[in-house]
Amino acid sequence: MNVLVINAGSSSLKYQLVHVENHAVIAKGICERVGSANAFHKHGIDENEVVIDAQMADHDAAMALVLDSLINSDDAPIKSLDEIDAIGHRIVQGGKYFDKSVLIDDDVIEKIDELAELAPLHNKAALMGIRACQKHMPNIPMVAVFDTSFFQTLPPKAYMYPLPYEYYEKYAIRKYGAHGTSHRYISERAAVVLDEPLEDLKLITCHLGNGCSMSAIDHGVAVDTSMGLTPLDGLMMGTRCGAIDPAIVPFLMEHENLTTSEVNDVMNKKSGLLGISGVSNDLRSVRDASEGGNERAQLAYDMYSNSVKKYIGAYIAVMGGVDAIVLTAGVGENCEKMRRMIFAGLQPLGIILDEEKNRQRGFEREISADNSAVKIIIIPTNEEYMIALDTFRIVEESEIDRDI
Amino acid sequence: MNVLVINAGSSSLKYQLVHVENHAVIAKGICERVGSANAFHKHGIDENEVVIDAQMADHDAAMALVLDSLINSDDAPIKSLDEIDAIGHRIVQGGKYFDKSVLIDDDVIEKIDELAELAPLHNKAALMGIRACQKHMPNIPMVAVFDTSFFQTLPPKAYMYPLPYEYYEKYAIRKYGAHGTSHRYISERAAVVLDEPLEDLKLITCHLGNGCSMSAIDHGVAVDTSMGLTPLDGLMMGTRCGAIDPAIVPFLMEHENLTTSEVNDVMNKKSGLLGISGVSNDLRSVRDASEGGNERAQLAYDMYSNSVKKYIGAYIAVMGGVDAIVLTAGVGENCEKMRRMIFAGLQPLGIILDEEKNRQRGFEREISADNSAVKIIIIPTNEEYMIALDTFRIVEESEIDRDI
Repeated sequence: MNVLVINAGSSSLKYQLVHVENHAVIAKGICERVGSANAFHKHGIDENEVVIDAQMADHDAAMALVLDSLINSDDAPIKSLDEIDAIGHRIVQGGKYFDKSVLIDDDVIEKIDELAELAPLHNKAALMGIRACQKHMPNIPMVAVFDTSFFQTLPPKAYMYPLPYEYYEKYAIRKYGAHGTSHRYISERAAVVLDEPLEDLKLITCHLGNGCSMSAIDHGVAVDTSMGLTPLDGLMMGTRCGAIDPAIVPFLMEHENLTTSEVNDVMNKKSGLLGISGVSNDLRSVRDASEGGNERAQLAYDMYSNSVKKYIGAYIAVMGGVDAIVLTAGVGENCEKMRRMIFAGLQPLGIILDEEKNRQRGFEREISADNSAVKIIIIPTNEEYMIALDTFRIVEESEIDRDI
Repeated sequence: MNVLVINAGSSSLKYQLVHVENHAVIAKGICERVGSANAFHKHGIDENEVVIDAQMADHDAAMALVLDSLINSDDAPIKSLDEIDAIGHRIVQGGKYFDKSVLIDDDVIEKIDELAELAPLHNKAALMGIRACQKHMPNIPMVAVFDTSFFQTLPPKAYMYPLPYEYYEKYAIRKYGAHGTSHRYISERAAVVLDEPLEDLKLITCHLGNGCSMSAIDHGVAVDTSMGLTPLDGLMMGTRCGAIDPAIVPFLMEHENLTTSEVNDVMNKKSGLLGISGVSNDLRSVRDASEGGNERAQLAYDMYSNSVKKYIGAYIAVMGGVDAIVLTAGVGENCEKMRRMIFAGLQPLGIILDEEKNRQRGFEREISADNSAVKIIIIPTNEEYMIALDTFRIVEESEIDRDI
């Protein structure tokens, strides 16, 4: 089955065409700066990637462009849209309604719209993507895969904030988590690598990219996660501050004369690695600067690794132990220095990094020492494949139901 | 030496007269609602406590009343103010200036005033207390003991917030901690109870009262603490929310139409145990309600204990282990149910509560099981005695200096 995976952002449209049974990506690309004068469309795999300036007034126009390139470009992977069997949409916020992926119908669309309150930029963008697909491919089944659904298993003690209870009732203020598709994927793959049933394992999963989140997954069930009402909560990130003394927010608004939207911008876009180092939100640049003697860049490294280290401890306490710590995304997969700092000093907890394995590059792999009681595993994440797989399973099932 | 310990709040003046060498409290009391029509003065020890309605326009008037009662009440503990040898003032915010207690002079007063920006209510109140003492007892040496000084040993990775660095330079936004005098006292007493040098121990200290804070104390040095720029950071408390997704702050301001001061009020006074249970900020009332089947009261228990549990794990990771966990203050000293919940499931980490010892009441005591690798200790805190002791030591030292 060919599944078109759509990940629509406020001004972008990212896509992959995945042949599920073959685990093969047969096309991929992204439309960027949708709606602005300097929009462009990047498509193709690896060395065949091309970038084309293109006008696209909105997501609908971007979708038309994408579909056209799938069937009409020089190396068009398919001959007609009939070869697309299903579409999987990534949705950031599924709120309390969705604890798993679902076939998209009018009711689902309405709920995604209703939940836009909790993720204004993301859910509205996803709806534009869904509507564009409905227009161009009206008869192809679509599935919604939510970033939050994996965390609907969290117990109330983990998802509630200690605020007046009425805010939970009135606005549904609670922890929803994010990156759920990634945490689900790497926990499933980790069980395969460990050759043990997921249901027998206590895992701490760490998605460390520009956005960062960690989860405690106890016997296959997510019991805690670091992102919260929004993806600002929890760990220090590339440009986000994570959880801080909330009294700092009104303090900054008063002293810097900031509006609510401006203080949100500071915390989401100017903080984290970028805010501390003053160099970049990209850890590679921060590493280069720190190795060149930039003290603030080194401080950014210290703070980031310390932030991860503390969550590892917290989740060990939550689960009463851990069998494996799983790392993914840009930093988790690629930064040996950060991994060394995260695991430094954790030997007394039975967590021992193998320095040599940590330096090697590769795909899915163990990097803990042979005598480490806790395994440390790197799993390159693949949210698109997970979305394609969910879409495949749900569409297959619904067709079986229909046949009956 | 008789030391008068003064703890001035915005509308209160708390005091103890301590004979340091004898470890004896020879007088104590509090003036409440200073500056309002229904002010009162409570003084006397245990069954001798009396409450007297009294007019006091300001802290100066309250101080006059206190001094009068010390020498003129029915059971006046001293005959003249000459019997007060020194005064110790509790100061909430010592900023970067004070890493230990100091003799008060004009420069110290100026700095306490300057730091009022970071603790508006508290430092201004302390200054009123200092000035009242200067007026009524001009020749008695005074010492300032800061809540924050114990945490000046924190490394930058622990005290910096991942916000734009300029805010640290401009406003000194960083983690200062609070309850430092309590954490210092109970860590010193824990070493005595354990019969090991403080310098050989990894301790996690938990001050769990209406305000809650935890610290990681590595070989006698504070390396992390949960309270931050303000005492709102960190753990869930009686009425405070602790660290939350900071995006919730602007969200609430927008949706509830709150000012910065109003949202601070919500987070400081209407959240925590009170906000979740809807019953009380007092854990005893919450416990009664939870035992009567109130689900939100039970949820408040779950969240509070989970919050402490996660910090225990985080600090174990920070220090690479822990020798003892030390509990103090109202909840830490008295709530066996909360302690049971905090330590539940931590057996795999070598932390085992003794159910029977946990039920017993007493003074300083161990409540961990004999086979627990990590000791759990209860130490009733005594910030007043610690302030008196600091004052005693500093005044003695300064007099020796003078004699030379």
